[in-house]
Amino acid sequence: MKTLESSLLVPEFEDVLIAQQRIQPYIHKTPVLTSSFLNQLTGAELFFKCENFQKAGVFKVRGACNAVFGLSEEMAAKGVATHSSGNHALSLSYAAGRRGIPVTVVMPHTAPQAKKDAVRGYGGTIIECEPSTSSREATFARVVAQSGADFVHPYNDARVIAGQATCSLELHEQVDSLGCVIAPIGGGGMVSGTCLTLSTIAPQIKIYAAEPLNADDAARSLHAGHIIADDAPETIADGLKVPLKDLTWHFVNSHVTDILTATEEDILNAMKLIWKRMKIVMEPSSAVPLATILKNRELFAGQRIGVIITGGNVDLDRLPWLNL
Amino acid sequence: MKTLESSLLVPEFEDVLIAQQRIQPYIHKTPVLTSSFLNQLTGAELFFKCENFQKAGVFKVRGACNAVFGLSEEMAAKGVATHSSGNHALSLSYAAGRRGIPVTVVMPHTAPQAKKDAVRGYGGTIIECEPSTSSREATFARVVAQSGADFVHPYNDARVIAGQATCSLELHEQVDSLGCVIAPIGGGGMVSGTCLTLSTIAPQIKIYAAEPLNADDAARSLHAGHIIADDAPETIADGLKVPLKDLTWHFVNSHVTDILTATEEDILNAMKLIWKRMKIVMEPSSAVPLATILKNRELFAGQRIGVIITGGNVDLDRLPWLNL
Repeated sequence: MKTLESSLLVPEFEDVLIAQQRIQPYIHKTPVLTSSFLNQLTGAELFFKCENFQKAGVFKVRGACNAVFGLSEEMAAKGVATHSSGNHALSLSYAAGRRGIPVTVVMPHTAPQAKKDAVRGYGGTIIECEPSTSSREATFARVVAQSGADFVHPYNDARVIAGQATCSLELHEQVDSLGCVIAPIGGGGMVSGTCLTLSTIAPQIKIYAAEPLNADDAARSLHAGHIIADDAPETIADGLKVPLKDLTWHFVNSHVTDILTATEEDILNAMKLIWKRMKIVMEPSSAVPLATILKNRELFAGQRIGVIITGGNVDLDRLPWLNL
Repeated sequence: MKTLESSLLVPEFEDVLIAQQRIQPYIHKTPVLTSSFLNQLTGAELFFKCENFQKAGVFKVRGACNAVFGLSEEMAAKGVATHSSGNHALSLSYAAGRRGIPVTVVMPHTAPQAKKDAVRGYGGTIIECEPSTSSREATFARVVAQSGADFVHPYNDARVIAGQATCSLELHEQVDSLGCVIAPIGGGGMVSGTCLTLSTIAPQIKIYAAEPLNADDAARSLHAGHIIADDAPETIADGLKVPLKDLTWHFVNSHVTDILTATEEDILNAMKLIWKRMKIVMEPSSAVPLATILKNRELFAGQRIGVIITGGNVDLDRLPWLNL
């Protein structure tokens, strides 16, 4: 790893190879699926890397396992902690459970019961806070001060990005002659990992990111040349609401060709299309790449495209097309 | 093929090998998925053969392709026909479309628009009838008399059973040391094909069938020693309402160890469990095997079990757990 101006550690490709060895016993090498129907519809060849089939239902276990299993015995004994009510909390709980160390998740008491149950199902301890940033930060600081737990950020962490980067390493082994890879972007952990791997081993492959128009802070950041963070955007792609941070901005700004956006309706239609035609359960966030490909046919026509399906943790009782 | 007393042709294992060669260009070799969560829950090792990922979303394209591509040029020119509003109509339309021959489906005008659209999407012609057996039979007889089309029955047809039998041939190549295989049973096409293949190449593997308690005519038939047909049973596993016929009864009676049943609630819970944990879209019918395994843990404990996920064509706007 090297150091950014901000003194954050930046992962290098060697860290990805170490991560791949380290996490291999705890994760799935996920399959790549294709759909002749969607190929016809888009005029391209789509290769869907199915991280919805990953352990805990999401790619984020890669980064979480890399952070957890990279800790020294002494550090590990103090456990890990994070503040997240989503897939990162689930992934970190899974990873800590596999290593048999404590994991504490600070979560607003208003978080959905299903998410709390899922974290506890993997052995995580939940500390509830008020649904405000100040309460969350104060509560989290207290947890870390008391336990000495290692803070694993959902994406602005070199260990996490190196872990996510193993996904495109697998994809590159599984599918040859890719013209580009496209992944959804929220905080930018998966996209940064993709940049890290592909800029090293296959710099000819273009990297696109896909973002909800309602939460297009990353697209505006890329075009402005600096990080723009929105306050609480609203989108059905609820994994993509968070802003870029300096480490993910470093990768996105250096290696991403473009960030394309899609409306809520586009995302919903693409999600239903994938469920119906590919028979897989995936999250709204994971439908954003297909939604943008369908809106930009001429850009992608004739190409072999890697499409990252990032996760499959969706509330089956509240499917978005049933709430319109 | 050999002949039954009823003078129906009975497929033999050689027909399965011919079918496998014949249909290979038109179907997927579907993947086998596993779930460590479901293995822990059942105390067994489950290998899910995912025919929900099959062309047209269902195993029935195997039999339909075997029938369609086995026709002489002269026969094929007259086309094929069937009466079904479900997966067989879709599968036969797909197969005929791939061969480029006409296909006519007789369907009550009350059939759901989505099913009509799907058949037409694959190039099928729909002839509507009244929603009564007499109207359906009269309409179908007229269609066949006019066109000379070949009638492909959904399951009581040697060509269809030989086609379905290629599924367990693949499964046997993909997973070793299976103790048993379990598949849902309606008319018995998939189960008959499984019997045909496994009784020849792996007679030590036990074959179980799984049936909704609300439509348990096959279970009662097996225990009584003769076919019992129910009139219009009601179950969410809507692919499993039809009765056994003489050809499928021949296989079921000769080779099935037992037929296990599950309540509507068991089926629904098993379906949701598979969607939630395995992230795959599959039909209520396909959940019946897991539902019966969960009800009969001691019978299956410790075994390696092949579980046939028969199809994935479900109405995403009317998921059964949302209508309770």
